[in-house]
Amino acid sequence: MEENIKEILFDLVSRKQFRQLKEKLCDMNEFDIASFMEELDSEKQIIVFRMLPKELASDVFACLEVETQGHIINSITDKELAYIIEELYVDDAVDMLEELPATVVKRVLQNAAPSTRLQINEFLKYPENSAGSIMTAEYIGLKKNMTVEEAFAYIRKHGYDKETIYTCYVMDAKRMLEGVVTVKDLLMSDYEVKMEDIMDTNVIKAVTTDDKEEIADLFNKYDLLSLPVVDHENRLVGIVTIDDAVDVMEEEATEDFEKMAAMHPSEKPYLKTGVFELAKNRIVWLLVLMISSMLTGGILTRYEDAFKVMPLLVSFVPMLTDTGGNAGSQSSTMIIRGMTIGEIASSDILKVIWKEARVSVIVGIILGAVNFVRLVVQYPGQPLVALTVVLALFATVFLAKVIGGMLPIAAKKLHLDPAIMAAPLITTIVDAVSLVIYFQIAVELLHIK
Amino acid sequence: MEENIKEILFDLVSRKQFRQLKEKLCDMNEFDIASFMEELDSEKQIIVFRMLPKELASDVFACLEVETQGHIINSITDKELAYIIEELYVDDAVDMLEELPATVVKRVLQNAAPSTRLQINEFLKYPENSAGSIMTAEYIGLKKNMTVEEAFAYIRKHGYDKETIYTCYVMDAKRMLEGVVTVKDLLMSDYEVKMEDIMDTNVIKAVTTDDKEEIADLFNKYDLLSLPVVDHENRLVGIVTIDDAVDVMEEEATEDFEKMAAMHPSEKPYLKTGVFELAKNRIVWLLVLMISSMLTGGILTRYEDAFKVMPLLVSFVPMLTDTGGNAGSQSSTMIIRGMTIGEIASSDILKVIWKEARVSVIVGIILGAVNFVRLVVQYPGQPLVALTVVLALFATVFLAKVIGGMLPIAAKKLHLDPAIMAAPLITTIVDAVSLVIYFQIAVELLHIK
Repeated sequence: MEENIKEILFDLVSRKQFRQLKEKLCDMNEFDIASFMEELDSEKQIIVFRMLPKELASDVFACLEVETQGHIINSITDKELAYIIEELYVDDAVDMLEELPATVVKRVLQNAAPSTRLQINEFLKYPENSAGSIMTAEYIGLKKNMTVEEAFAYIRKHGYDKETIYTCYVMDAKRMLEGVVTVKDLLMSDYEVKMEDIMDTNVIKAVTTDDKEEIADLFNKYDLLSLPVVDHENRLVGIVTIDDAVDVMEEEATEDFEKMAAMHPSEKPYLKTGVFELAKNRIVWLLVLMISSMLTGGILTRYEDAFKVMPLLVSFVPMLTDTGGNAGSQSSTMIIRGMTIGEIASSDILKVIWKEARVSVIVGIILGAVNFVRLVVQYPGQPLVALTVVLALFATVFLAKVIGGMLPIAAKKLHLDPAIMAAPLITTIVDAVSLVIYFQIAVELLHIK
Repeated sequence: MEENIKEILFDLVSRKQFRQLKEKLCDMNEFDIASFMEELDSEKQIIVFRMLPKELASDVFACLEVETQGHIINSITDKELAYIIEELYVDDAVDMLEELPATVVKRVLQNAAPSTRLQINEFLKYPENSAGSIMTAEYIGLKKNMTVEEAFAYIRKHGYDKETIYTCYVMDAKRMLEGVVTVKDLLMSDYEVKMEDIMDTNVIKAVTTDDKEEIADLFNKYDLLSLPVVDHENRLVGIVTIDDAVDVMEEEATEDFEKMAAMHPSEKPYLKTGVFELAKNRIVWLLVLMISSMLTGGILTRYEDAFKVMPLLVSFVPMLTDTGGNAGSQSSTMIIRGMTIGEIASSDILKVIWKEARVSVIVGIILGAVNFVRLVVQYPGQPLVALTVVLALFATVFLAKVIGGMLPIAAKKLHLDPAIMAAPLITTIVDAVSLVIYFQIAVELLHIK
């Protein structure tokens, strides 16, 4: 939506030119109207919502955020509410009810038609993160002895409130899924052809209890627009449409970002998450990593004498540990992401180690050379100090990259989430390793003890 | 695809049971056949490819990786090649040609029909990362005075080789885009209704030169299945379909992961990227960050006297800098991701700072308390050392979170990529800040100079 259209709308609201506002809104799509409404205060939201024609109003309702939905539910009549619930797709209704307070949920269910209520209650039972939790019930179901002409007649009659009509599902009398037919197949076939002759029986499908991330992977792998979901008896119970699969992919990426920055993934958008919840999501890993780095600190106390004799040594510690941490997290990030998108398998571990080893040699030589020049210039009389730092840096980069490449795959082999082997933990591990190497080389080369 | 089916196929290949193999393959979809072929050696790939029926073969071809495509092109006749090129969607052909060696490209273009060659050449000219580079030419174009019946007849006749038929584009005589009609609209309307009466003129569209990430955002925002792309005169030149938009979203997330781990994003999958290219992508940021952390090291030399007097102080440095780095990168990761998915705007900067400040107080108190207990137990006679460490830790966490929350937004305001303000740079900045605070507190509280 153009910014200036939004400004015009806000201007109409503030000048209470509701007739003109209504005209403008009726020309817009539900997504833009919803995004406009989210920026109004709650009183104005109701005024604007009520001026929309019934059908548009329920489309807009589905695009609003849960808080706004709850607020609207509390401000409209039972009759208006009943209409909206019937128009909502089951998956949108369920998403909303899962987040609304119990009293609002009760009122919604009371105003739903008995069959809708039953269905919503059924769908609410599917475990979080399962295929069942993201599917919807509004699909076109056909019978295998229907002709193309009958199928078209059926779609014309029942298609208006279905989430997708482009893939239709062919079932037997017991609702067992037997095949799929696309509207493209129907359009390309003669009117008298039967469904059983054109349906594809090799159906890619999911079970209600499958993990929703697996569902998203199926959409990616097979370029699907929708996916049928069956129960454990192969009865069709719903479909997942691509818009919901895309949402899962985005959520999944967001969760990975959070996990890889050592956080417990949050359920809600940042600005809507409370301070205590944010703190709770962050504190566990911060504590774990803090205690780990105390152990690293313990290593330093073992070499107290070394840096009493030569305090200069300490000033290279941040450079060594930071570079090691960065080198390691570069590698671990690439490997974790590669595994997530299916480019790297557990069986590639040796290839990964060999690749990281060679990359680290190249990178290590360049970083070492730059450091050597700098040290020789800055501390001209101390070639052995320069050598110590450069050798330690090279060994650190080498180990960081090999460890960073290896640990995520090792985690997966141990059925742990590879994302925990990301920057924070890798940095902590590499810190400890690099300090031991550094001071050990210093003790040997500089003969300090 | 089930793993045991793959095993059966491999077994059939190794026993040269090609008739049975062919039967099995003809029952499978193109994605699974392609994924099976990728695991064969190059000689067997050709044998398997040639046993596929012509139409299936070209579908499979579109799903193969570019290396395999190039290998197949080199092993088939001109006639076979010509058939495949005509069957390929323009976007798939262009993707392939952009990566194949020049000699292969030449042979492909020589065998393409003149009109196809013209179109491919046209599409190859669109800049990388533009809408033009991911669009395809295979869409259904209708005229506004067509009736629904005529539209169906047109789709039946021309739809078989179109990438999507579900959204049709209504154009005037000069190919100006005037509206869109979905097959659902067509099915829900009477046969004699004209396109101009049912088309939606409020079209969400893109221009060929738009950035492909903006295109992906439009798909997300408006739940589109396809998007028309027009040139600067509003003439329709192609469409982007959701499968390509989803690929862009995944690439975008991968790039963000790489950038946030201080790497130049790579074009190819990890295992296919050469060692020198990987090293090149990583070395620049490693150098920049290494030099920055030398400056941090420089800060330590200013306090040499302090840790000569009390070497114990040095052992807390890793704990302080690591915790600061982790706390800061938690915040920056959430803010960067929040901005990418549009949940956080630049104008939210004050909200973010206020939120991070409060979170850091909670987290800082907990971390400080744990540390205090540990220090009092481990170093019973030195309450002032414990106080120094705890105060420095609290200040570090506070600053880390505020800086980590603020800098990505500041970067965006300066039209820089927020992703550079991720863990590595934040850690380096926070390191320097926390060391100054730590030693300054130590100097004051412990009276060492």
